[in-house]
Amino acid sequence: MIKTDILIIGAGPTGLFTVFEAGLLKLKCHLIDALPQPGGQCSEIYPKKPIYDIPAFPEILAGDLVSNLLEQIKPFEPSFTLGERAETLEKLEDGTFIVTTNKETKHHAPVVVIAGGLGSFEPRKPLIPNIANFEDAGVAYMIKDPEIYRNKRVVIAGGGDSALDWAIFLTDVASEVSLVHRRKEFRGALDSVEKASELAKLGKVRLFTEAEVVGVEGNKVLEAVTIRHNDKAKGETVLDVDYFIPLFGLSPKLGPIGNWGLEIQRNAIKVNNAKDYQTNIPGVYAIGDVNTYEGKLKLILSGFHEAAVMCQFAYQRINPNKKYVMKYTTVGGVEGFDGSKKEAKKEVVQSIV
Amino acid sequence: MIKTDILIIGAGPTGLFTVFEAGLLKLKCHLIDALPQPGGQCSEIYPKKPIYDIPAFPEILAGDLVSNLLEQIKPFEPSFTLGERAETLEKLEDGTFIVTTNKETKHHAPVVVIAGGLGSFEPRKPLIPNIANFEDAGVAYMIKDPEIYRNKRVVIAGGGDSALDWAIFLTDVASEVSLVHRRKEFRGALDSVEKASELAKLGKVRLFTEAEVVGVEGNKVLEAVTIRHNDKAKGETVLDVDYFIPLFGLSPKLGPIGNWGLEIQRNAIKVNNAKDYQTNIPGVYAIGDVNTYEGKLKLILSGFHEAAVMCQFAYQRINPNKKYVMKYTTVGGVEGFDGSKKEAKKEVVQSIV
Ligand SMILES: Cc1cc2nc3c(=O)[nH]c(=O)nc-3n(C[C@H](O)[C@H](O)[C@H](O)COP(=O)(O)OP(=O)(O)OC[C@H]3O[C@@H](n4cnc5c(N)ncnc54)[C@H](O)[C@@H]3O)c2cc1C
Ligand SMILES: Cc1cc2nc3c(=O)[nH]c(=O)nc-3n(C[C@H](O)[C@H](O)[C@H](O)COP(=O)(O)OP(=O)(O)OC[C@H]3O[C@@H](n4cnc5c(N)ncnc54)[C@H](O)[C@@H]3O)c2cc1C
Repeated sequence: MIKTDILIIGAGPTGLFTVFEAGLLKLKCHLIDALPQPGGQCSEIYPKKPIYDIPAFPEILAGDLVSNLLEQIKPFEPSFTLGERAETLEKLEDGTFIVTTNKETKHHAPVVVIAGGLGSFEPRKPLIPNIANFEDAGVAYMIKDPEIYRNKRVVIAGGGDSALDWAIFLTDVASEVSLVHRRKEFRGALDSVEKASELAKLGKVRLFTEAEVVGVEGNKVLEAVTIRHNDKAKGETVLDVDYFIPLFGLSPKLGPIGNWGLEIQRNAIKVNNAKDYQTNIPGVYAIGDVNTYEGKLKLILSGFHEAAVMCQFAYQRINPNKKYVMKYTTVGGVEGFDGSKKEAKKEVVQSIV
Repeated sequence: MIKTDILIIGAGPTGLFTVFEAGLLKLKCHLIDALPQPGGQCSEIYPKKPIYDIPAFPEILAGDLVSNLLEQIKPFEPSFTLGERAETLEKLEDGTFIVTTNKETKHHAPVVVIAGGLGSFEPRKPLIPNIANFEDAGVAYMIKDPEIYRNKRVVIAGGGDSALDWAIFLTDVASEVSLVHRRKEFRGALDSVEKASELAKLGKVRLFTEAEVVGVEGNKVLEAVTIRHNDKAKGETVLDVDYFIPLFGLSPKLGPIGNWGLEIQRNAIKVNNAKDYQTNIPGVYAIGDVNTYEGKLKLILSGFHEAAVMCQFAYQRINPNKKYVMKYTTVGGVEGFDGSKKEAKKEVVQSIV
């Protein structure tokens, strides 16, 4: 059982910044995310694209925003359950909560913060009848730990940035990389397309375009995939492989959170934005893209402010008898849980001559 | 008469970021500030100190935060009335407003946004009976344009960073710089104290410590100041000067805004935070440190979010019949009023071999 002060569901920008605001209040956070990496939409959908409306950043790449947030929260030592989906919420007699994931990992905390964005990112799966038999036995829809593929034969399917970038990356890891795509053209960042093109010419990536994986087979674990070519004359190719990774994009689904008894409006969670961003379940808050109220803007800066306000009320819930007096970070500095301390240089008081 | 879409009172971080959010909605902004420079508390009180809780900046100097904001809003060409205090608010028959400053500058706009922070920064003045006679005639409480002092004899009074930094700066401009302080010790950033010390030793700054300016005289314009030494044996020194600049700090006062018929609570303006941050006067909004509501945090990030939400409603007020569909800056780019256009690199669609 993982125990923490604030359990955050969703490690997008909102969830990450919550760690910082909670840390200032000496509250520890643990984050759960269905994705294998933190950053939410910014990491999953547009890491290499610029954002222009983050205050005081005339321009910042979404991926850099996430790196900066990770650096900012480091002193507060957040812990993570990644690649798992929060499945159930249970309220105990004493008002605390247990959240269990689809992999049965259990988390216990007095406060739950849902920062789930547009929902848990779920993979779009190819329509291959028996594919479920090989999930976690050769078939994966996202890459958590690339080392698994060391010296293995890997087939990636897809035509976007994820497929391109992982195919490129794995050429240095796997013994054999094949890339299968239904069309002739790929859609991605210019440098990814160019790099993939180069590797294909060098024979480091075996390319099957205008083709589709239509079958998977093996004895308990995956052993081969069948590739069908659009060009009927070419028929089918059977490829011996260790891994098949269809990367057709992840799409967010509110999913199990929808069944937790929360008040849902237009696929988002209704909160009290006049005060603390609490949901209809006391002790459960919802911030960032996942919540809704009149005038709500689904922007990154909204989640940041909501996190700061919410943490003050979460503090009161966790410490009903303490009074917290806010100190500016400039004045009080930042004391990490790791023993680090950042603070402004003190003014000197001294005579000049 | 200055005309604009959104008239912003206060050019602190909140007012500045409002220009950006309004600009995305194609609304033009004009800002009024009592200070000679933009940046509010960040520029006036702690420009060289680090802030640690701006999202995605593990650390940023307050002065750099302001520079970044100015760069970010540049494409939207904000205009400024600086060094003047907004004094009166008048609502016209057609629902638009006229705001007049203490220097009688008039501004006309359909929406007024008060981003006045803790109030208009007003100088602490020394208790010299006839000093008011020389205001704008040799006596100044803040430095708007240092060029005025070119080849003049200047006396600065004060013992903090402003006094130190301006004394240092003016050694390159004025013909003579004297610095008068009641105590022997100065209180400031280490490098300022060291630099001033060096200049004093070189005779570039004439230092009068444990002393106080107690008299000013002249015929219409200032001609001399009288310095009284704590050490009675030393008596008084009369110094011929062109300018006397007491820099005893500026302290914010809600001031005239308190008489505009706004609902005031604990020295701040009550707003509807459940929706649009509007005050009790329709068309007048209040954001940032100047407003109050349950759970309000007087932090920089609060003003940023409040600005974004408020602008959407201001847009509706100005364009009652248009429907605005929000586009992410990453997707739609940023089109400046100056003809500039920032946008994400487009994805390429091309075949690899
Ligand atoms: C192409 C694009 C461009 C954009 N441009 C901008 C822009 O310019 N400016 C701007 O402000 N915003 C922009 N946005 C929106 C911005 O990315 C979102 O506002 C932001 O990501 C919301 O952050 P969040 O942390 O609230 O949610 P998300 O980033 O959506 O993160 C939520 C996380 O929660 C996880 N999760 C949800 N439910 C569960 C569960 N049950 N179990 C486990 N994990 C779960 C998800 O997997 C996800 O990782 C853009 C979005 C896109 C797609
Ligand atoms: C030492 C110190 C450290 C701080 N540290 C932090 C920190 O670490 N993190 C954080 O988030 N915040 C911090 N703050 C607070 C932060 O500076 C404020 O929240 C922020 O400046 C508020 O911005 P604002 O634009 O709303 O108001 P302000 O910065 O106060 O700007 C308001 C402006 O409006 C002008 N104005 C007001 N009335 C009038 C009028 N009638 N006519 C003309 N002009 C007018 C004023 O002159 C002023 O320039 C700190 C503050 C101080 C003093």
